[in-house]
Amino acid sequence: MEVLSALNLGDFAQVFSKMGMFPVFDVAYYIVSIIYLKYEPGSVEVSRRSPVASWLCAMLYCFGSYILADIMLGSSPIDYFQHNSHILLASAVWYLIFYCPLNLFYKCVVFLPVKLVLVALKEVVRTRKIAAGVHHAFHAYHHGFFIMVIVGYVKGSGVALISNFEQLLRGVWRPETNEILNMSFPTKASLYGAILFTLQETHYLPVSKSTLILVFTLFMATSKIVMTARHSHGSPFALIESWVCHLLFGSPLGGSEEDHHAPAAPSSPLKTKEELSDGARKRKAKKAE
Amino acid sequence: MEVLSALNLGDFAQVFSKMGMFPVFDVAYYIVSIIYLKYEPGSVEVSRRSPVASWLCAMLYCFGSYILADIMLGSSPIDYFQHNSHILLASAVWYLIFYCPLNLFYKCVVFLPVKLVLVALKEVVRTRKIAAGVHHAFHAYHHGFFIMVIVGYVKGSGVALISNFEQLLRGVWRPETNEILNMSFPTKASLYGAILFTLQETHYLPVSKSTLILVFTLFMATSKIVMTARHSHGSPFALIESWVCHLLFGSPLGGSEEDHHAPAAPSSPLKTKEELSDGARKRKAKKAE
Amino acid sequence: MEVLSALNLGDFAQVFSKMGMFPVFDVAYYIVSIIYLKYEPGSVEVSRRSPVASWLCAMLYCFGSYILADIMLGSSPIDYFQHNSHILLASAVWYLIFYCPLNLFYKCVVFLPVKLVLVALKEVVRTRKIAAGVHHAFHAYHHGFFIMVIVGYVKGSGVALISNFEQLLRGVWRPETNEILNMSFPTKASLYGAILFTLQETHYLPVSKSTLILVFTLFMATSKIVMTARHSHGSPFALIESWVCHLLFGSPLGGSEEDHHAPAAPSSPLKTKEELSDGARKRKAKKAE
Repeated sequence: MEVLSALNLGDFAQVFSKMGMFPVFDVAYYIVSIIYLKYEPGSVEVSRRSPVASWLCAMLYCFGSYILADIMLGSSPIDYFQHNSHILLASAVWYLIFYCPLNLFYKCVVFLPVKLVLVALKEVVRTRKIAAGVHHAFHAYHHGFFIMVIVGYVKGSGVALISNFEQLLRGVWRPETNEILNMSFPTKASLYGAILFTLQETHYLPVSKSTLILVFTLFMATSKIVMTARHSHGSPFALIESWVCHLLFGSPLGGSEEDHHAPAAPSSPLKTKEELSDGARKRKAKKAE
Repeated sequence: MEVLSALNLGDFAQVFSKMGMFPVFDVAYYIVSIIYLKYEPGSVEVSRRSPVASWLCAMLYCFGSYILADIMLGSSPIDYFQHNSHILLASAVWYLIFYCPLNLFYKCVVFLPVKLVLVALKEVVRTRKIAAGVHHAFHAYHHGFFIMVIVGYVKGSGVALISNFEQLLRGVWRPETNEILNMSFPTKASLYGAILFTLQETHYLPVSKSTLILVFTLFMATSKIVMTARHSHGSPFALIESWVCHLLFGSPLGGSEEDHHAPAAPSSPLKTKEELSDGARKRKAKKAE
Repeated sequence: MEVLSALNLGDFAQVFSKMGMFPVFDVAYYIVSIIYLKYEPGSVEVSRRSPVASWLCAMLYCFGSYILADIMLGSSPIDYFQHNSHILLASAVWYLIFYCPLNLFYKCVVFLPVKLVLVALKEVVRTRKIAAGVHHAFHAYHHGFFIMVIVGYVKGSGVALISNFEQLLRGVWRPETNEILNMSFPTKASLYGAILFTLQETHYLPVSKSTLILVFTLFMATSKIVMTARHSHGSPFALIESWVCHLLFGSPLGGSEEDHHAPAAPSSPLKTKEELSDGARKRKAKKAE
């Protein structure tokens, strides 16, 4: 920590962790989330046939983390929908991405340099959400370590955790996989992040929250930028995880990468969401238009 | 409004909007709802094999709107079940419709003139529910326009919105469609109604609530009577919707009627609930007995 | 009741109904529940591939009744997760059953004499849960008879009622059946128990609660021990139910045993969970390892 203070990074972390997210960061979050919705096969047809279903899916993509966290803490699941400006902003982004003439807006935001910036901004929001989720749960349950981790986790992962039901809204049903069975990198990172923030909140981790936010944001942003730039879905945790899982749970060595190809119990010939690279998904989305 | 007051319609609207719903209107609501449950293929077998599942489905059909609205506002989903008299009444209707000797009760209530009256009474209840839902949400969230619309909407649509899960209770699973993807007339009308009542509640629509209730009830009752009498599922909104959707969302012209036949993304050869006319459903229900 | 007091059974019932459940009885409950999870085909593979999914399933098996009851009463579904010691204990049991070297722990607890004791202890916990659920609901809704029965029922049945969604977490989807359509003995007994405890709580049943707890526990424990020892899934209620259902609901005579083999409406060639005897499930679980 002394190195940090010498570099005056403590002050910077403080300022960074107090910075308002609305509207710049939030808009980036909405754009990246709804781009991912547009990548989903069939989502463009749904937006033509049933704008209400498409709008609902977009709202789940943008606010799924709030909905899930509110459910977990026993509040109204649509509590966040009282923030009209956020909903209107997300709706505008949804409209621009799906219905902009000549697909202009979409083409701008998926232009790689723009997208990399947006992806980085999204991770800033994600980290804040995890920290806020853990803090919120801490106020409701002072000793509920598991509750803190769960709420932080759902705040970070958002719609991914309920993707089966989000797909159902679009008439798609893939029961053979889900985000818990095959965790993607952001979901895993949210879990680890939630554990770290819980340890910080309960003073088992001797770091200030602002520093943790800064460090975790940098890690997440860097990872996601690299992964987006390389169209990769490999996780930086793969090696450690593979060994830890082998030791603790007797998982076969080779890591989570190979897991998908193992003859899973009730698997289907369908490819999982994770196996479709960003590139492939983009091509599909383009063809569908 | 002056015309209305000259005709003394304002007073009438006032009286109409204060009229108690229990028990006459509520019974009509229960009867029509459970008739629709009996139309569902397989529901008669379920009533023989597992009365508990059949009863639960009937309760979802009768009280789905309360359950959904309670969930949306973060209350206990079974809060409405404290009204023992309502539950007992609905259970009696369920018993009579499914188990009455010689199927006598069912034959009486599906006799067209009787059914038309019941259908009209049901729409009276539906309109009141939408108004009550919006009002309830307004008290919880004074500026939550979206929340008001959502709560009014689920109060009006009821079980239709969770029909996938209601079917699952009967062992049926049709993931390729749902009520949001293919909205039926009552669901659409509930959405528009919820928007109107929200505008009224927030004083953007300069009408008294009692007048709006009267007008909307008349519209709904007339539409449903005509549709039931003609065994039709066409919507009076079809033309306007088709143009608005074409302009705003680039939907192909031709309206929602043709939508069902369009080669939908992940469709199946199964007919959707909407495509089965009332007549066909009745015939199926008869054969199943 | 005089006979009971003469035998001093009233005092014994009093003591029995005040006895603490933590940790001995709770551990038995966790062990038996997680053994049933391990019997499920595919669950061992899931524990290797995705320990998080396996842990979540185990938590649903152990605490599903609390989660469901909290949902029903509008509380936070993860409210019970504030009891860290219970969660840690259940997690330890899960770890030992799935990952213990040489499968030693599992082999010990499924050794029949041990298992019979554990099964009996589990029923003690189940009865207490039903009574506590009814009591809890009674405090929230003094005249909500239906709510009391529902909450007592979900407290007694636990994960069985949401088994479709628990399976989905493991990538398995069997929509053609569910615990409401084909009730197993514990689910049925929980329903009847919830009705009895509701009648007791509202003073329609002139018995003391401690006596009812004692009698119901003895009935449940005896039934489950006999059924486990004989690898049977027949229900002691079969004969009465078959006649009552025949008279009230026109169900074909022959009872619930034959029901499964009747050509059910939307059935599939898959065997239901109930038709797999304990023995068959054990064999499958062994092969999977």
